[in-house]
Amino acid sequence: MSTQLQVVERCRVFLAEQQIAMGDAINIRHYTDWSNYKRIQPYAVLFPKNTEQVSQILSICNELKQAVVPQGGMTGVAGAGIANADEIVIALDKMHKIEEIDQYASTMTVQAGVTLEEVQNAARQAGLFFPVDVGGRGSCQIGGNIATNAGGLSVIRYGMMREHVLGIEVVLADGRVLNLMNKMIKNNAGYDLKQNFIGSEGTLGIVTRAVLKLSAPPSELSTCLCAFPDFLSAVHLLRRLQKNLTTPNAFEVMWDEYYQLSLSWMQNSSNPLTQSYPVYAIFDVEAPAESLENLLADMFETGEILDAVIAQNQAQAQQLWLIRETVPAEISSTGRPLCFDVSLPIGELGEFKEVCQARLDQHFPDLVSLFFGHIGDSNMHIILDLKHLPEDQLESVMTGIDEVVYGVVREFKGCISAEHGIGLLKRDYLHYSVDENTLNMMRQLKQLFDPNKILNPNKIFK
Amino acid sequence: MSTQLQVVERCRVFLAEQQIAMGDAINIRHYTDWSNYKRIQPYAVLFPKNTEQVSQILSICNELKQAVVPQGGMTGVAGAGIANADEIVIALDKMHKIEEIDQYASTMTVQAGVTLEEVQNAARQAGLFFPVDVGGRGSCQIGGNIATNAGGLSVIRYGMMREHVLGIEVVLADGRVLNLMNKMIKNNAGYDLKQNFIGSEGTLGIVTRAVLKLSAPPSELSTCLCAFPDFLSAVHLLRRLQKNLTTPNAFEVMWDEYYQLSLSWMQNSSNPLTQSYPVYAIFDVEAPAESLENLLADMFETGEILDAVIAQNQAQAQQLWLIRETVPAEISSTGRPLCFDVSLPIGELGEFKEVCQARLDQHFPDLVSLFFGHIGDSNMHIILDLKHLPEDQLESVMTGIDEVVYGVVREFKGCISAEHGIGLLKRDYLHYSVDENTLNMMRQLKQLFDPNKILNPNKIFK
Repeated sequence: MSTQLQVVERCRVFLAEQQIAMGDAINIRHYTDWSNYKRIQPYAVLFPKNTEQVSQILSICNELKQAVVPQGGMTGVAGAGIANADEIVIALDKMHKIEEIDQYASTMTVQAGVTLEEVQNAARQAGLFFPVDVGGRGSCQIGGNIATNAGGLSVIRYGMMREHVLGIEVVLADGRVLNLMNKMIKNNAGYDLKQNFIGSEGTLGIVTRAVLKLSAPPSELSTCLCAFPDFLSAVHLLRRLQKNLTTPNAFEVMWDEYYQLSLSWMQNSSNPLTQSYPVYAIFDVEAPAESLENLLADMFETGEILDAVIAQNQAQAQQLWLIRETVPAEISSTGRPLCFDVSLPIGELGEFKEVCQARLDQHFPDLVSLFFGHIGDSNMHIILDLKHLPEDQLESVMTGIDEVVYGVVREFKGCISAEHGIGLLKRDYLHYSVDENTLNMMRQLKQLFDPNKILNPNKIFK
Repeated sequence: MSTQLQVVERCRVFLAEQQIAMGDAINIRHYTDWSNYKRIQPYAVLFPKNTEQVSQILSICNELKQAVVPQGGMTGVAGAGIANADEIVIALDKMHKIEEIDQYASTMTVQAGVTLEEVQNAARQAGLFFPVDVGGRGSCQIGGNIATNAGGLSVIRYGMMREHVLGIEVVLADGRVLNLMNKMIKNNAGYDLKQNFIGSEGTLGIVTRAVLKLSAPPSELSTCLCAFPDFLSAVHLLRRLQKNLTTPNAFEVMWDEYYQLSLSWMQNSSNPLTQSYPVYAIFDVEAPAESLENLLADMFETGEILDAVIAQNQAQAQQLWLIRETVPAEISSTGRPLCFDVSLPIGELGEFKEVCQARLDQHFPDLVSLFFGHIGDSNMHIILDLKHLPEDQLESVMTGIDEVVYGVVREFKGCISAEHGIGLLKRDYLHYSVDENTLNMMRQLKQLFDPNKILNPNKIFK
């Protein structure tokens, strides 16, 4: 009997029939994530209903040295949730209870399988606000958001997922349960162990429950589109907003190729500005329109802002945001996107864009590379559409582009993953951003938490 | 030759004469911290000038299995920096350079021995703001702030030290240097190793450099004193402020015994309110006085606020803040303070206070226990003055009070250290707030990072 089958048979003792899927009974949503990198049918998918069952499964897998892959909503784009055909998936779908909202502490206690959108909605219904937001909100699960330290547009004001997690419960590789369900803002009782699991992509333990920190909802936001002569002027605007008004709830920068392409794809839309410019920013800020206008007028005087429009109503605000959202959405639905998610010190993002763009144009003259990003978070995205490439060139071109982009990131001492994580897809480039001592220490941590290498093996590093 | 002397002799190869202090040449500031727990002359104090020297010292100590104690400004109150007579101190005093302020990235790169106040001042001079603030600002060093995950009054708005550290450089027990000097807001390239060192009280590595995240300075603050019928009304006010205006920069709650004692000790001060009330809050908030007045008026109508005064100028604001600051300052300078720093879910702090107070009154009827704290951070402080106790009863009474307070904290599933850390003084109570699996995992982490147990041994746990 194979090890996999032994695990499944031993799990039948405490899992019901409908908690085990094998072979063709496995829903294809467990085959791959939003990267669409590889579609693989795992050996089996187990659906534990509670922490104890997760613990029992891991205890058996650890004893038999069976590799397991934890899965949330599978909205990741780094392949961290993809399982091989000989691996067993633990899906947290059946652990989707919101256990408590504590109005005094301003916290929500949830099981790992609750979706981000469910958390956002429950917070809103309680008159509170959960600020982490990403495109996969309807599918992605809190356990996955924690395991990947999710980012998104609101990081600039509210921080990454890490800053919204007060406590977790986590099952270790050997089945031991660590109860770190802290509800307090301040807790300095020894090492803050939960930090190790946040962003570890399921390689050190499986998060089963969490205490989330809720915030007060923002009041009405002003939405604005600005044009700049150069990238650093956009950074100046951001810093002026922070100094004179407040930190924006989102602050997204685009270069002109991206902007024009977006407009060309938006139906019934003309350019809200009078001409084209080198760089643009779209942002939401919690500030009175008059204060915002005054600040923009000042920078218009000095030539740091060339043009600007403030949305006068919700519909206009949505129309402005479409300029930011159309390109990735369109390429994802009609093309074959290759997407990068890198970070650099904010002041260097402009120069990085020039160098990276030139290098890509030189090596891949037929491809258009589009630059945009959450620059207030030091985060740049690059998207290319590979749909016109012949199938047989695809892999080598993708590798070539990776080499170029990550090569420039390395030259700039940047990071190859700002918010998407490493998973499988960036594993071979991790050493571009992480030195040998650091990588060795990561391996030692992995060895400590998972000596039999059963938890999401070969993700992040081999 | 003793191991200690061997270490010192080998260090003479690369350390200058004035970088080594032994015996009576050791300044008494290295004997103890602000807890005044024990005054011990360490065997030697070494003053490395750079990271390489820290690495060389640790490499030698690790080889010879010599215990070392890292020291910053010695403003801690948990004894984490106190060395035994057979231990060697590494003091970071000579590594006090501010290396860079990056205006675009809004970061400051510093060596570990720079004081918090120097960081605050340098940020201010650059038109920016470093929000972490504690009473020891003039002496405490950034390395120590990181090692203890410092808190303070501004946590409610800006978060703990952890949230202001983007990168660190740290020397491991064996002398290896981990370069984690990240400057980016977003960096998900593998495990976020720096988190292990933040708050580990020098037991896992010695922080030598750091990249700090700077903020925009707050604009003018309104200072206000409010009186409430009960504790939960104070929490209501806090949540209303957050929802309708903004999160206060500080929000401090006191009970009446504390308030009255403070007034009695403040020279030339009458009660700014018309009578005494059960609970008070003093807070600073970045909001127009009119908005604040309207909000307070609403809550006055519902009886949740009984009285309030808003400072009309800077002098009045300082006078209000003196009510919060006088008691700890006075007891520290004229008495013998015993101070607690616990945290609980915010909604339970009021009940905790009642139970803890009653329990203390029952066991120690001659002592006055005063309750106050950063309740928006879930953090309660308790202070008692033991100056009238006979010297020979001191230790047993202190232990007795510890048992009572930490016992109630355990009953409430709270935390025995909100912001001060564990060090030596709370070590025996760590298991009140941390279960066995968690404590074992902390020990395993310690074993991984410091197998020879040379780094600040016996701190946090034995």
